[in-house]
Amino acid sequence: MKLYDTNRAPNPRRVRIFLAEKGISVPLEPVDLGKGEHKSAEFTGLNPRQRVPLLVLDDGTAIAETMAICRYFEALQPEPNLFGHTPEEQGLVEMWQRQVELDLFYPIMMVLRHLNPAMAQMEVPQVPEWGEANKPKVLAALGFFNDQLADRAFVAGSRFSVADITMLVAVDFLRVIRTEVPEHHTHLKRWYDVVSQRPSAKA
Amino acid sequence: MKLYDTNRAPNPRRVRIFLAEKGISVPLEPVDLGKGEHKSAEFTGLNPRQRVPLLVLDDGTAIAETMAICRYFEALQPEPNLFGHTPEEQGLVEMWQRQVELDLFYPIMMVLRHLNPAMAQMEVPQVPEWGEANKPKVLAALGFFNDQLADRAFVAGSRFSVADITMLVAVDFLRVIRTEVPEHHTHLKRWYDVVSQRPSAKA
Repeated sequence: MKLYDTNRAPNPRRVRIFLAEKGISVPLEPVDLGKGEHKSAEFTGLNPRQRVPLLVLDDGTAIAETMAICRYFEALQPEPNLFGHTPEEQGLVEMWQRQVELDLFYPIMMVLRHLNPAMAQMEVPQVPEWGEANKPKVLAALGFFNDQLADRAFVAGSRFSVADITMLVAVDFLRVIRTEVPEHHTHLKRWYDVVSQRPSAKA
Repeated sequence: MKLYDTNRAPNPRRVRIFLAEKGISVPLEPVDLGKGEHKSAEFTGLNPRQRVPLLVLDDGTAIAETMAICRYFEALQPEPNLFGHTPEEQGLVEMWQRQVELDLFYPIMMVLRHLNPAMAQMEVPQVPEWGEANKPKVLAALGFFNDQLADRAFVAGSRFSVADITMLVAVDFLRVIRTEVPEHHTHLKRWYDVVSQRPSAKA
């Protein structure tokens, strides 16, 4: 098996952190987005959407999409559990994971992709007004999740889950749009201090 | 348990189809979006994001997000299986479900929300240029999935899965942006004929 990976993008990091939490080691195959290696005929044959991360199994099966790759490994090696045990916990982890994606991770991406000239070839067409429209969404989401973390330790409940991985990568990704968690979001900052010190955060 | 539901929106329909496929019956609580019932204090208390569908369990736990609700029921009653059995199948179902969401469902939603004056209160601010930018994305996705369906029966493989539910609801939702599957997309049309005739499609 082989994991196509790249250093600077946030989605591949989500998978690397997930694997580190599981204690799973997978051979990494670097893809240089700057050199356009994700648009090569070979890579496009594996993933027509031309995105990393991409997991290729020994039989050639290619699994794209960050959460799909994580689901594969969760099924392969259920513990330590990162998607929830009971039906209720599974529902809540999926709910929070998606809300962090939709309300924070995705708006950060829209600000970057529609306002940064360096993204002009990746986002066609860039719509600067849409990038601007997402700036207040990012700030609103930070406030919302700060409030949520007032009375629980982790994003989806009392223990670490894949929802925390998405949140950690999103918060670290704020730097690309020159934004920081406001000082008065003390709950979010407390959560960040805890989660960013887990060994997996270095992945 | 109670499922907050509404008739015309696509996401609640995804859950209803999922439940119909499982043979699970859940009491429905209608929410009238036109009357702003999703913004009531009561509903906002249950779901701060003010969205339907929303599942409320007997102990008061509220699970929002279409796929989170479906995951809850999959864990509660695994058969008939809709998210995949083996790790590989689970990865592929999640991959295709998300690609249909990201590349087809979501762009349709962007065209609707940013170009339809009736959506001005739901999407603030509307960015018409972003709505326009998504029209070709919708058409490209229809072509891509048509090609994918050339050599397999269902979206994620040889059997029906939650990825087909997302695709069915997305294709039916094309009407709101006055778009149809082009006649020459014969694979997608063959798939649609099969899937739309399942009893669950009426849900």
